[in-house]
Amino acid sequence: MGAPMASNLIKAGYEPSPAEVASSCDVTFAMLADPQSAAEVACGADGAAEGLAPGKGYVDVSTVDGATSKLIGERITSTGASFLEAPVSGSKKPAEDGLLIFLTAGDESLYKRVAPLLDVMGKSRFYLGDVGNGAAMKLVVNMVMGSMMVSFSEGLLLSEKVGLDPNTLVEVISQGAISAPMFSLKGPSMVKAAYPTAFPLKHQQKDLRLALALAESVSQSIPTVAAANELYKAAKSLGLADHDFSAVIEALKAKAHSSQQ
Amino acid sequence: MGAPMASNLIKAGYEPSPAEVASSCDVTFAMLADPQSAAEVACGADGAAEGLAPGKGYVDVSTVDGATSKLIGERITSTGASFLEAPVSGSKKPAEDGLLIFLTAGDESLYKRVAPLLDVMGKSRFYLGDVGNGAAMKLVVNMVMGSMMVSFSEGLLLSEKVGLDPNTLVEVISQGAISAPMFSLKGPSMVKAAYPTAFPLKHQQKDLRLALALAESVSQSIPTVAAANELYKAAKSLGLADHDFSAVIEALKAKAHSSQQ
Amino acid sequence: MGAPMASNLIKAGYEPSPAEVASSCDVTFAMLADPQSAAEVACGADGAAEGLAPGKGYVDVSTVDGATSKLIGERITSTGASFLEAPVSGSKKPAEDGLLIFLTAGDESLYKRVAPLLDVMGKSRFYLGDVGNGAAMKLVVNMVMGSMMVSFSEGLLLSEKVGLDPNTLVEVISQGAISAPMFSLKGPSMVKAAYPTAFPLKHQQKDLRLALALAESVSQSIPTVAAANELYKAAKSLGLADHDFSAVIEALKAKAHSSQQ
Amino acid sequence: MGAPMASNLIKAGYEPSPAEVASSCDVTFAMLADPQSAAEVACGADGAAEGLAPGKGYVDVSTVDGATSKLIGERITSTGASFLEAPVSGSKKPAEDGLLIFLTAGDESLYKRVAPLLDVMGKSRFYLGDVGNGAAMKLVVNMVMGSMMVSFSEGLLLSEKVGLDPNTLVEVISQGAISAPMFSLKGPSMVKAAYPTAFPLKHQQKDLRLALALAESVSQSIPTVAAANELYKAAKSLGLADHDFSAVIEALKAKAHSSQQ
Repeated sequence: MGAPMASNLIKAGYEPSPAEVASSCDVTFAMLADPQSAAEVACGADGAAEGLAPGKGYVDVSTVDGATSKLIGERITSTGASFLEAPVSGSKKPAEDGLLIFLTAGDESLYKRVAPLLDVMGKSRFYLGDVGNGAAMKLVVNMVMGSMMVSFSEGLLLSEKVGLDPNTLVEVISQGAISAPMFSLKGPSMVKAAYPTAFPLKHQQKDLRLALALAESVSQSIPTVAAANELYKAAKSLGLADHDFSAVIEALKAKAHSSQQ
Repeated sequence: MGAPMASNLIKAGYEPSPAEVASSCDVTFAMLADPQSAAEVACGADGAAEGLAPGKGYVDVSTVDGATSKLIGERITSTGASFLEAPVSGSKKPAEDGLLIFLTAGDESLYKRVAPLLDVMGKSRFYLGDVGNGAAMKLVVNMVMGSMMVSFSEGLLLSEKVGLDPNTLVEVISQGAISAPMFSLKGPSMVKAAYPTAFPLKHQQKDLRLALALAESVSQSIPTVAAANELYKAAKSLGLADHDFSAVIEALKAKAHSSQQ
Repeated sequence: MGAPMASNLIKAGYEPSPAEVASSCDVTFAMLADPQSAAEVACGADGAAEGLAPGKGYVDVSTVDGATSKLIGERITSTGASFLEAPVSGSKKPAEDGLLIFLTAGDESLYKRVAPLLDVMGKSRFYLGDVGNGAAMKLVVNMVMGSMMVSFSEGLLLSEKVGLDPNTLVEVISQGAISAPMFSLKGPSMVKAAYPTAFPLKHQQKDLRLALALAESVSQSIPTVAAANELYKAAKSLGLADHDFSAVIEALKAKAHSSQQ
Repeated sequence: MGAPMASNLIKAGYEPSPAEVASSCDVTFAMLADPQSAAEVACGADGAAEGLAPGKGYVDVSTVDGATSKLIGERITSTGASFLEAPVSGSKKPAEDGLLIFLTAGDESLYKRVAPLLDVMGKSRFYLGDVGNGAAMKLVVNMVMGSMMVSFSEGLLLSEKVGLDPNTLVEVISQGAISAPMFSLKGPSMVKAAYPTAFPLKHQQKDLRLALALAESVSQSIPTVAAANELYKAAKSLGLADHDFSAVIEALKAKAHSSQQ
């Protein structure tokens, strides 16, 4: 998602240069693909931290776990600079359209300072307190999303099996209390067994795993998430890890076994 | 829901009289509380069927199971009258606001004939083919709803336990791909542990039971619904059967046992 | 199971004649394949009830649900005869070996009267009180069995996937606290994906369904049973309904989809 | 469990002295409480590894995860000594009675060398190949056990709620195909809501978590384990972490909420 986000910044007149940002810019934005890269760019040899100093700010919009975020935050603030974690909720399309949601946590004055930039890239922003809370909030949202996708898949398949048109189910749902953009967006292609990747299934499954671990750390029972996670795992073993997470519906389709026929 | 539906009909100039409708009206609308009442009003002694004849129509907007609907349909059509099942998706508030969704099935020309009346009471209508399909569609929608409510509850509790504000979770969700009117409507009161009844929990649990039976009849696996159903059952045994179905969240809150303390 | 049970009775000197038993014998044993047959033989035209009278006894060892058992019991006792429901726990092999377990309920003096006959056919017997309790006890036992079989299947597959020999797992389990005859008996053939039918999968799934309904009637949450039931349903849709219930393991084996490859 | 195991060794004439074993004994047995301790004793400063040399053997009967076991194994074999992981299946009572089951992996000649000692402490032993396999086998066994305990709990509660005597259920189960020592041992006290700790609930829950992680690493779906794990988590939040794992039954007992009454 970094590309369209950067593109929106550029269109709005901002020109961040990742190579020298830490020392040459007041505020550095980091958008990395995974926790390892995020940690390396911030804390590694020749990492951003080495170019930071009091008065500067570092905003990490990568999606990382709470532990990595805290690690980065500690390294950044040890330089006297201020740190804001700001993972985004939203995938490719919202990023291109400037419709991301920022879930920020960390230094509140930095949050206020970068608010105008966040508003260029996203449609809304939340300040959630201590570092780690942004990551946690994103995890909870993705957890509910992953579980909802399975419930929706169960509905689509059941409707079809009992002779209803699953496209009509999508339309009926779109009119009522459980109408959600995700259902309207993904339903029609799921009915056609097409899963163009917006959010890879393996990432959704990873988020469910992390959410289960988070829930375990506070002894919270989350049984539908646990049930949903087993299906994402089954979908991965069907070779669907890199498809869109809506491909989880395939794990609910029983396939005849050649050995049994 | 019959009262506000009737009230909307009356406001629009229609004055149906339930006592003599079958013989004095062209089209009779029945809105009963449960399958037994629906069957009795249609098929019982002095029931609607006795006043029906070729050319007349009977529209049942009650929520009944497919079997009852077929039973009623057969009795009605045996008089030469035509029959339309038309269960509604939506609860008290949508009924008052004329925002119901009609899921109709049965006689298509009767459907076209009553379309203007349906449009007075609801915001949309679907014609789904054979009698029974309306009931089945409603069941699938309610099934997805019941399961989603549990996923949402799991998210609310997890967010709270890890130190996030669950009201912020409601707000974050309302901005993204899984935004749904149900979450925005019920979330804030769920956070306060208030469950004013719009759709009773016992009815939601009954619908999950019926959906599981429907799924079993076609050997469709629906694991998150099965997991969710167990929680609605637990909520019933907590004395929450007549509260709103959002009270299912209480079943996820572990309570210390006096005997263990 | 009727054949080996009758055979054991005959070997022991008893010669029940099903055609005229009700009138010619003191105590009639009925062993029917399903609830419908059991009800018809007891209550139907020319059924056993018509040949019964005060002083006579009727023992139904068929496996029927509680409602059917109560229905039969009421018809039998209306003749003045006494009634005992006596479903058996055990399948083909235990029946042949006289190792069944009788779960009886109903008339206690009849229970005492037929105890010697039960001891010929089975290795143990329980008297459980009111009619219906025998059926309920059998259902609970079968429910635990069905769920255990899935847990065991999950263990077998997991051991194999991580490079352990599943046959060794069977052996290790057979030595410890969770050792059960079922695991030792079925494990080796499950490893070979062979499921010679002792107890058909469709009957196990039906028992899980009935157990879920029983649990719902008392608002008892039984989440692992609910999860297990979804797998038996999936196994049925794989065409395994008439295989042994241990074939449920197949539902846990993800199969690659030709459409995805 | 170290104490009774050592006691059995002593009774049999062996006198291991933990302080100097590594240098003064041919074969050292380590029995530590957790992975951290096991790693420290083997690899830490003044750890066993420092006293080892070619020709000596190190047998770790602690229960540790596969990763820790491999770590220890590498450090031990770096000294030229040979290593055997030998986690035990069984709890306090089997340890006292010399009825443990050893799940060994690593150096096969060391396995043969210590076989007579293992036979003093346990009733059976398995050699499973590469280091890590012992830990994995133990995890799978404990996983099946944890899931079975929940199924059994569901049966006990359901039987009681429908008016059967749960003690009779324990007895009926003890006669049939699903009879297991664990059920007979723990059933009677579970009925009395007593959970004297043999295997702490928090350890059972930890094993389920590790098993879920293991299953995820090979994309194996294990839905009843996932459902069971949620209940152990709920039991932990009821304050039952240090009770016996059979206390998981408490998580299935719905408790009325004072706020709802």
